[in-house]
Amino acid sequence: MAVVQISCTPLGEGNGGLSKFVAGCLKLVQESGLTYQLTPMGTILEGELDEIFALVRKMHESPFNAGALRVSTLIKIDDRRDREHTMAGKMRSVQERLEQND
Amino acid sequence: MAVVQISCTPLGEGNGGLSKFVAGCLKLVQESGLTYQLTPMGTILEGELDEIFALVRKMHESPFNAGALRVSTLIKIDDRRDREHTMAGKMRSVQERLEQND
Amino acid sequence: MAVVQISCTPLGEGNGGLSKFVAGCLKLVQESGLTYQLTPMGTILEGELDEIFALVRKMHESPFNAGALRVSTLIKIDDRRDREHTMAGKMRSVQERLEQND
Amino acid sequence: MAVVQISCTPLGEGNGGLSKFVAGCLKLVQESGLTYQLTPMGTILEGELDEIFALVRKMHESPFNAGALRVSTLIKIDDRRDREHTMAGKMRSVQERLEQND
Repeated sequence: MAVVQISCTPLGEGNGGLSKFVAGCLKLVQESGLTYQLTPMGTILEGELDEIFALVRKMHESPFNAGALRVSTLIKIDDRRDREHTMAGKMRSVQERLEQND
Repeated sequence: MAVVQISCTPLGEGNGGLSKFVAGCLKLVQESGLTYQLTPMGTILEGELDEIFALVRKMHESPFNAGALRVSTLIKIDDRRDREHTMAGKMRSVQERLEQND
Repeated sequence: MAVVQISCTPLGEGNGGLSKFVAGCLKLVQESGLTYQLTPMGTILEGELDEIFALVRKMHESPFNAGALRVSTLIKIDDRRDREHTMAGKMRSVQERLEQND
Repeated sequence: MAVVQISCTPLGEGNGGLSKFVAGCLKLVQESGLTYQLTPMGTILEGELDEIFALVRKMHESPFNAGALRVSTLIKIDDRRDREHTMAGKMRSVQERLEQND
């Protein structure tokens, strides 16, 4: 399973305010049924990589559908196959380390 | 004020398990006193850019101090100067848009 | 047309030396027939986005096929639809600006 | 020595055309005297990390000085300390691997 962060940024739009475009992308995420977390710097998705790729492809299209002429999309994939790999598991591992060091 | 995401990843280390290194970086964040949010894909910082740069420089050094020979660090800066710009404000803008569209 | 940069980085492998994995990814790029440029920080692809997505999906799989257990892939898409958008065109625009400023 | 890629993107500016801002950043790079390579997706710098950080800080400021109100900057650091680490060396390693596989 993969954990993937994505942000889609229209360029030349919105006088710096981009929440309309972010909300459009997020609606697609909610419709997908995938586990996700919205953060101040992008949306984090969790699931099978092929499902995530299909969603990411749609999300990138969303600002164009809302009128943008140029879109910059950043995708970071963290894919681990030797054991279960989830957003919650990653957070737990760091938390445990912090407690050990105390 | 800037909102900045950072992840420091040692390469060739840890057989895929990197939480020890993440915890080391996070301790520096906690000591800095800056507002932050830990996410499954990195740490998001908020504050004056010069303070953030000084912290980021230290964070990048942390895996080397813990034994790594090579470190890949990804930094994404979102810096807006026409109005207040915070993690909470960014989240609120998207939330308001989502509610308007309902 | 889109211009897309991709880097696939296996984690926990190679004692810091990753050229074997980069070469494996690059072979897939060469077989694809897409226009590309290898840089010291990743491979830049140019073409129709659906073709690029199909290639990126294969490239991300390549380090796993070579034995990696965890792969971190970073993809940055620059997609512009109001006019032709190529690697050569982007370089030319910057060059012209530099000459105007001289 | 570190190899670092940077791109500074003003948001809400330029109707999608950003070469003016890229050229402004590049002038700072040229004045710095650091080894660099301009690519269609950003500028790659090579050198001591503290020098690079000082330059990156200036580059991020450049679009604001040219009138932008919001700037998105992406920085990727590849820092290796077990042996010499240069743009040319990274390219050579991949080239050698490709030839071995032929």
